[in-house]
Amino acid sequence: MLTTAQRDRILVILVRPRNPLNIGAVARAMANFGFAHLTVVAPYEPHWREAKSAIQAESLLQNAKSVEHLAEALAHCTLVLGTGTLTHRSAEQPVVPLPALAPHIDRALQADGRIALVLGPEKHGLTRDDLAYCHLLVEIPTDPRQPSMNLGQAAAVCLYELATRCGVPAEAHAPVPAAIAPSATLDCLADLIEQTMTASAYSPRAMVPANHHDLRVLLRRLALTPPDARRTMGLFRRILWRLGHTPGPPQP
Amino acid sequence: MLTTAQRDRILVILVRPRNPLNIGAVARAMANFGFAHLTVVAPYEPHWREAKSAIQAESLLQNAKSVEHLAEALAHCTLVLGTGTLTHRSAEQPVVPLPALAPHIDRALQADGRIALVLGPEKHGLTRDDLAYCHLLVEIPTDPRQPSMNLGQAAAVCLYELATRCGVPAEAHAPVPAAIAPSATLDCLADLIEQTMTASAYSPRAMVPANHHDLRVLLRRLALTPPDARRTMGLFRRILWRLGHTPGPPQP
Repeated sequence: MLTTAQRDRILVILVRPRNPLNIGAVARAMANFGFAHLTVVAPYEPHWREAKSAIQAESLLQNAKSVEHLAEALAHCTLVLGTGTLTHRSAEQPVVPLPALAPHIDRALQADGRIALVLGPEKHGLTRDDLAYCHLLVEIPTDPRQPSMNLGQAAAVCLYELATRCGVPAEAHAPVPAAIAPSATLDCLADLIEQTMTASAYSPRAMVPANHHDLRVLLRRLALTPPDARRTMGLFRRILWRLGHTPGPPQP
Repeated sequence: MLTTAQRDRILVILVRPRNPLNIGAVARAMANFGFAHLTVVAPYEPHWREAKSAIQAESLLQNAKSVEHLAEALAHCTLVLGTGTLTHRSAEQPVVPLPALAPHIDRALQADGRIALVLGPEKHGLTRDDLAYCHLLVEIPTDPRQPSMNLGQAAAVCLYELATRCGVPAEAHAPVPAAIAPSATLDCLADLIEQTMTASAYSPRAMVPANHHDLRVLLRRLALTPPDARRTMGLFRRILWRLGHTPGPPQP
């Protein structure tokens, strides 16, 4: 079982939810399993107001944050878990079945990390762009004839698994890796690398969006530590300066 | 993981549901996790019709049975699992936390049993009378500050646990007990014992409802095998005949 302090380091992030009932259902499942931190990304404003003003709205929902972009919601997270089914696509991230997720969570908690569980919109789930910010894609093992779950039910199942199967000492699972650089640092690094690509005329303009995406996926797969990220950023700042460009945004 | 044949021996029973959306949500979770057999006990008729005629109603919902009494729905079951929280009462049945349920399910499947997962109505859950038909009370470990789950979410969490954590050979858990007498046989035995109590003027009339309840709870706790039940029924028929009464209903 997770301790209260551990639950406090796990965030739930709801991306572009449409149905206010589903926002309420996710909040209720969080309260049921003792999770307190909800962020909603780019909600449809009238529905977001409706969800927050529902008579039985949890205090959790009153305290929820609303942000414009997923990157903002994830800034301090070291392990970002996307959710979804893979019926119509293949994954660029490592896929972990939900029943096998516990060791990943426990290692991240032991390394003092912050974890985000990211849930996509009702109809089509997380986009490829959303998933580019995720370290792992968590898959709930559903029947291939009816793979797509209701948003509130998917949240309940994921949070149940986290609350009941995580929180054992990480040693019980496998060797503990070093701390992982948070998402905002990886985005900062990605920006520097992209500026360098442009400054060095590395690729044609048409390739920029594809490179942008692939770079984010790659940086997460590498599991960089904070010193790794710091050093790499130092290198790219140096290159940019040499190329006669401004050295990119300040380090977070 | 459960095989399809094993999933086919697990029924979901919804007792007196009020909200047609919740009936639909339970059906959807069943389809997500590959369970096909739904029985609804004493539904509110207009809502039941509405749930079955919903545009996206699963074929599962079209094939669902509706019965008047829980005992009917359970007749062929050898392991009946009640669900609920224990915030406002103590349990008469053994309580099993959901994450520890798998060995019970696997033993029942190995003994060729039929299993029922019984979900209560939205507001107050299963009554004490409903629970008298249950062998075990399954408890989802929720936060004491918000213990009560939404019906569709509770169903999803239970079915996820069954689908993903059960289906390992029962030997892997513990010794395999003998087959268990089905629910209808236990009810038949309970009737015979009650007739005997009356015929023998065992207890004052005011005690009859309490005895009725306690007897059902007791018979389930005993885990009688079919031969146990047959022999005991034979004994009570004999006693009744000796007491000059009709020998009770026919053996099922």
